[in-house]
Amino acid sequence: MQTIGLAVIGAGYWGPNLVRNAQATPGLRLRYLCDLDADRARRVLGEYSTVRVSDSLDEVLADPEVHAVAIATPAKTHLPVAMAALEAGKHVLVEKPLAATHAEGAALVRAAEERGLTLMLDHTYCYTPAVAHLRELVHSGGIGSVQYLDSVRINLGLVQPDVDVLWDLAPHDLSIFLSILPEGVRPLAVAAHGSDPIGAGRACVAHLTIELTGGAMAHVHVNWLSPTKIRTMVIGGSQRTVVWDDLNPSQRLSVYDRGVDRAGAAELGEEKREQTIVSYRTGDMVAPALPEKEALRAVMAEFHAAITEGRPPLTDGRSGLRVLAILEAASASLAQGGAFLPILDSEDVAGSENAAAPEGALL
Amino acid sequence: MQTIGLAVIGAGYWGPNLVRNAQATPGLRLRYLCDLDADRARRVLGEYSTVRVSDSLDEVLADPEVHAVAIATPAKTHLPVAMAALEAGKHVLVEKPLAATHAEGAALVRAAEERGLTLMLDHTYCYTPAVAHLRELVHSGGIGSVQYLDSVRINLGLVQPDVDVLWDLAPHDLSIFLSILPEGVRPLAVAAHGSDPIGAGRACVAHLTIELTGGAMAHVHVNWLSPTKIRTMVIGGSQRTVVWDDLNPSQRLSVYDRGVDRAGAAELGEEKREQTIVSYRTGDMVAPALPEKEALRAVMAEFHAAITEGRPPLTDGRSGLRVLAILEAASASLAQGGAFLPILDSEDVAGSENAAAPEGALL
Amino acid sequence: MQTIGLAVIGAGYWGPNLVRNAQATPGLRLRYLCDLDADRARRVLGEYSTVRVSDSLDEVLADPEVHAVAIATPAKTHLPVAMAALEAGKHVLVEKPLAATHAEGAALVRAAEERGLTLMLDHTYCYTPAVAHLRELVHSGGIGSVQYLDSVRINLGLVQPDVDVLWDLAPHDLSIFLSILPEGVRPLAVAAHGSDPIGAGRACVAHLTIELTGGAMAHVHVNWLSPTKIRTMVIGGSQRTVVWDDLNPSQRLSVYDRGVDRAGAAELGEEKREQTIVSYRTGDMVAPALPEKEALRAVMAEFHAAITEGRPPLTDGRSGLRVLAILEAASASLAQGGAFLPILDSEDVAGSENAAAPEGALL
Amino acid sequence: MQTIGLAVIGAGYWGPNLVRNAQATPGLRLRYLCDLDADRARRVLGEYSTVRVSDSLDEVLADPEVHAVAIATPAKTHLPVAMAALEAGKHVLVEKPLAATHAEGAALVRAAEERGLTLMLDHTYCYTPAVAHLRELVHSGGIGSVQYLDSVRINLGLVQPDVDVLWDLAPHDLSIFLSILPEGVRPLAVAAHGSDPIGAGRACVAHLTIELTGGAMAHVHVNWLSPTKIRTMVIGGSQRTVVWDDLNPSQRLSVYDRGVDRAGAAELGEEKREQTIVSYRTGDMVAPALPEKEALRAVMAEFHAAITEGRPPLTDGRSGLRVLAILEAASASLAQGGAFLPILDSEDVAGSENAAAPEGALL
Repeated sequence: MQTIGLAVIGAGYWGPNLVRNAQATPGLRLRYLCDLDADRARRVLGEYSTVRVSDSLDEVLADPEVHAVAIATPAKTHLPVAMAALEAGKHVLVEKPLAATHAEGAALVRAAEERGLTLMLDHTYCYTPAVAHLRELVHSGGIGSVQYLDSVRINLGLVQPDVDVLWDLAPHDLSIFLSILPEGVRPLAVAAHGSDPIGAGRACVAHLTIELTGGAMAHVHVNWLSPTKIRTMVIGGSQRTVVWDDLNPSQRLSVYDRGVDRAGAAELGEEKREQTIVSYRTGDMVAPALPEKEALRAVMAEFHAAITEGRPPLTDGRSGLRVLAILEAASASLAQGGAFLPILDSEDVAGSENAAAPEGALL
Repeated sequence: MQTIGLAVIGAGYWGPNLVRNAQATPGLRLRYLCDLDADRARRVLGEYSTVRVSDSLDEVLADPEVHAVAIATPAKTHLPVAMAALEAGKHVLVEKPLAATHAEGAALVRAAEERGLTLMLDHTYCYTPAVAHLRELVHSGGIGSVQYLDSVRINLGLVQPDVDVLWDLAPHDLSIFLSILPEGVRPLAVAAHGSDPIGAGRACVAHLTIELTGGAMAHVHVNWLSPTKIRTMVIGGSQRTVVWDDLNPSQRLSVYDRGVDRAGAAELGEEKREQTIVSYRTGDMVAPALPEKEALRAVMAEFHAAITEGRPPLTDGRSGLRVLAILEAASASLAQGGAFLPILDSEDVAGSENAAAPEGALL
Repeated sequence: MQTIGLAVIGAGYWGPNLVRNAQATPGLRLRYLCDLDADRARRVLGEYSTVRVSDSLDEVLADPEVHAVAIATPAKTHLPVAMAALEAGKHVLVEKPLAATHAEGAALVRAAEERGLTLMLDHTYCYTPAVAHLRELVHSGGIGSVQYLDSVRINLGLVQPDVDVLWDLAPHDLSIFLSILPEGVRPLAVAAHGSDPIGAGRACVAHLTIELTGGAMAHVHVNWLSPTKIRTMVIGGSQRTVVWDDLNPSQRLSVYDRGVDRAGAAELGEEKREQTIVSYRTGDMVAPALPEKEALRAVMAEFHAAITEGRPPLTDGRSGLRVLAILEAASASLAQGGAFLPILDSEDVAGSENAAAPEGALL
Repeated sequence: MQTIGLAVIGAGYWGPNLVRNAQATPGLRLRYLCDLDADRARRVLGEYSTVRVSDSLDEVLADPEVHAVAIATPAKTHLPVAMAALEAGKHVLVEKPLAATHAEGAALVRAAEERGLTLMLDHTYCYTPAVAHLRELVHSGGIGSVQYLDSVRINLGLVQPDVDVLWDLAPHDLSIFLSILPEGVRPLAVAAHGSDPIGAGRACVAHLTIELTGGAMAHVHVNWLSPTKIRTMVIGGSQRTVVWDDLNPSQRLSVYDRGVDRAGAAELGEEKREQTIVSYRTGDMVAPALPEKEALRAVMAEFHAAITEGRPPLTDGRSGLRVLAILEAASASLAQGGAFLPILDSEDVAGSENAAAPEGALL
């Protein structure tokens, strides 16, 4: 197995998790933990570590034994840090969101693609056994056609100094949606409502409503002020509906063979529909056995595999760009009082020379 | 105790509950169960009852021993049935919603007020021990100022032939909100998003976002297509936050002494707010002991008390009108793609001669 | 359908449920509610009922239109009341336990069998959809061989004036065990531990351990002093294990394809067993869809069917006798400090002339 | 702060947790991870560690920089390993159970006391915030007098090669009981029932009933075969009852102001007790806010503090001996069919010259 030398950049909230999992991943060799505050980096590593500490990104990027970096710095620094890494020829794993704006994210995607380097998002949830199972269920047709999605991610959360609750939490839900939606179903428009009841200067509670190809609706509720912690997602399908409760380790997924049928509704004229017979199925519920494994370990393994196999990772830069497109449209909707706004098609933008223009129009 | 002779009109889904509870309420004397389908009414009463069956509303209203009626017929019939009862001098208890439109509801309120008759809404949830406790907590200042409300009412529900999920389920949430909100906090505007993924011809999943006086936001999620049943409401306050889980009989209310403080945020300039220190309280949680009693029994007792004491009931006609005002604005928002629309002030409308005009403008 | 005239005897705690369900059961015609306290009986029936009240058992039994009685009086009165009914030629449905002692119960079984009358126990739980499903699962071999049973029935319960917690609550668990155990597996011996920490004069907390044919163990925990209410039963099998949580209406039964295998253990000598490889299966969990219906309705239907079809009901007198045999042995074990004591074989006793002798020896 | 040099002995199931927490504890300096299988020890430390690996206990004990050892080897090796460490003048932290027999454990206690060395049990649960809170509640009189204890610890657990389920799991429950029981309340006798339905050669399901000073009863249910994981403990008191659900991180402790009173029961004659009025209190429930911290961190801190302060740790050798006394009596009861057997008073035994004799009599 090819050994990839790695540096972790950022020793704050998430960095220690990257350090721990990088050390446990075959094929990765952790060379540095880099932070402007070297003492903080030293505390993270502890007194028993052989990993080097550096407070200089330049030093780290200059080391030929560093082939890749994992970036866990604040979102607004992602562009300069990741760009420097790419320009130094390093592969990049970056925390969500990819960048502070879609334009910045597009610049990173282009830079990586031009150089043939791996640019991967640490959308950790996409690597959980639950999401892997969900994706397989949806893609295999096991739930039928997707009728609605509903995600709730609420908690007594840290009010972030630089982002609102939408940019802080919703990237999780959006990256999961994008990861499980079947081919051909994509977000078209988004409406957002939010409030700031504690005077924090930014939304602390927010609701996103997303219109998908085909008319299905996805909804996200994120909230920093809830005394109870809830992390559930429902994927309603025409054949089955799945409930994912991430805080119930003994039964994370519940697959209900239950639903509403409207036989023949499509063939009937509008005026007849009201009389159509609706039938209910109330079959069994199956909770599939899922392995318990740390998702971040799988993130690290995928990063290594994408680099050594020269293929795009499951959550590549473009997936991060798609999340940014939704977030930007949502922010614009929030500012405009909740109207539906179209979501940029990231496929076009990523390659365009002047990526910044379209979403500038949105804001 | 003064005996009030009662007739129940409508022997469908809810009528049997009215019959059972009316029979068990001191001071009420059930005289008739009235339904166009007399056989259905007979089946509801069973073979051992001395209560009379009638298929004629006229017959029932002509009986001087009938002082009041409880109406459990479809919403679109509320206007003619309730109006006939009021014109015959009977007090009226009516199922939610008060009527099919705000204008119709306003006509009923005026008719009752002109005649000095009791017009009461069967907003059953408002009479549960949980809501009574919530109301007391909020009104006494026990939770501080209201920061947000969030209600989820989802289930595999019957697709109604005549109303969408909003008109079917949201009256519960809205009447509860109105019942517990403190003096001076009222709904100002509403935005609604909905979808009909099964082709039922009406929204089966819907989200309401309501702006309240003072900037707090209330949100309602109603859904006929969910395989799991959830009925929770969160009332977030500056001092405490309450979670009501109506499906957890052993712990319906959980009062959290937990929250986020932003000391001094109000006094700081906008640019300073980001640096303000946010502090978290994580105190104990208290689940108050609540009596287990059937709410509909309390509805019946309140109906009797309001009639004999000549006072407005807790959920009078105007409370029903306020619910209709929100529903109409929500329907209009749904039709217009989710923009915020203002909510009629029911106090003015109820007394105006031409009530129909304003909300016509909305649609 | 043949109409069976019925009288309910006893208007206390359970009687109203019998009255309500008898009235709703096709083929049953409720003639009387009989109680020494006629006012109490009148209050149970309410002001709208055509059912007669009587305070005389003789009067009721003398009425030729009464073909059957349902007895909900205290356990110590079951012998005289039920015997009088049987001697008057009436079929009998009796609350659990069948009688105050095994000898009394045996006398009732003999009396009913001699006269060809139906004697049925109201072991309500045995008629729930959950137990019906459990029985089918176990009898069909779906869980493999039964390895252990564990039942917990705890609550803040009424301290009964005449019985301890064992006699009050354990009849439920024991009748369910007997109802679901496969042919050939029966209780052989029982040990009981109990305590009376509040000085009530009788055990308020008790644990039963029952040895079954084949070496499996059943355990019952009953408790009047628990602030939380738990009603769970686990049936561990070699192939599957079922957990029944009666307080979780959305998922009463959970069937786990999960367990421990010991391949080849049987063929190995004792000294080798420790090295045998134990393998774990962690397959999916299935929660079967169950209808929601009131079990007491099914009790009434079975009573009617057994009478009119001339066949033994599912929970016949002998099933009540088997429960008494376990309870008597458990009480004796309790008195003797928890040693295992053999359980009478009710099949022999029921037919013997002098049934009282054997269990007298136990006490 | 005085630095204590530490060696962890045993790199199996629990050793890695000791390594991780020792490294994070101020004042502890991890010198060695020692295991007969040096490769296993190397894998535990990983590729980035400066901690030394050794496969020689002698080498480790000869190092003057090692002042203390933490032992995580199989129970039957505790005597030789811990004794060697004590004889080398090292302080000892040992996994539960203290030793394979009470006699062996007593020998270790004597050896440590004679040398003035710290001998501490890693009864991890005793260091959780939940148990600390429970202990304070009980000792402060907050729950009144203890009426009953009930612990359930069931799971699909590894069938251990050398111990039965009682010795594997019950030490947790017993050490917690001993840690929270008030002064003067101690276990007097124990009865045990067990079964081995899978032919494992040892009990896989077991129930312990323990009689306490004052008549209260404690019960423990341990089970390796349960498909569901339950870890709950109920401490019933005359004033309040506490339920601890260790698998519910958002509400581990629930303190119920709920119970049964029997006013005056004590003063009444036996024959009058049945008529005494029993009253129920159904007050609020309080779930105290508890910090989330890793208990093993607190174990390490206590080990360091006990050594440097020269005081007995919270879970000293004698606490481990008390657990062994109950386990040995329970095993004897299991072998004898479940009769109650007295529990050795560990205070006497620990100091006696010939500790082995008494419990030999039990077996």
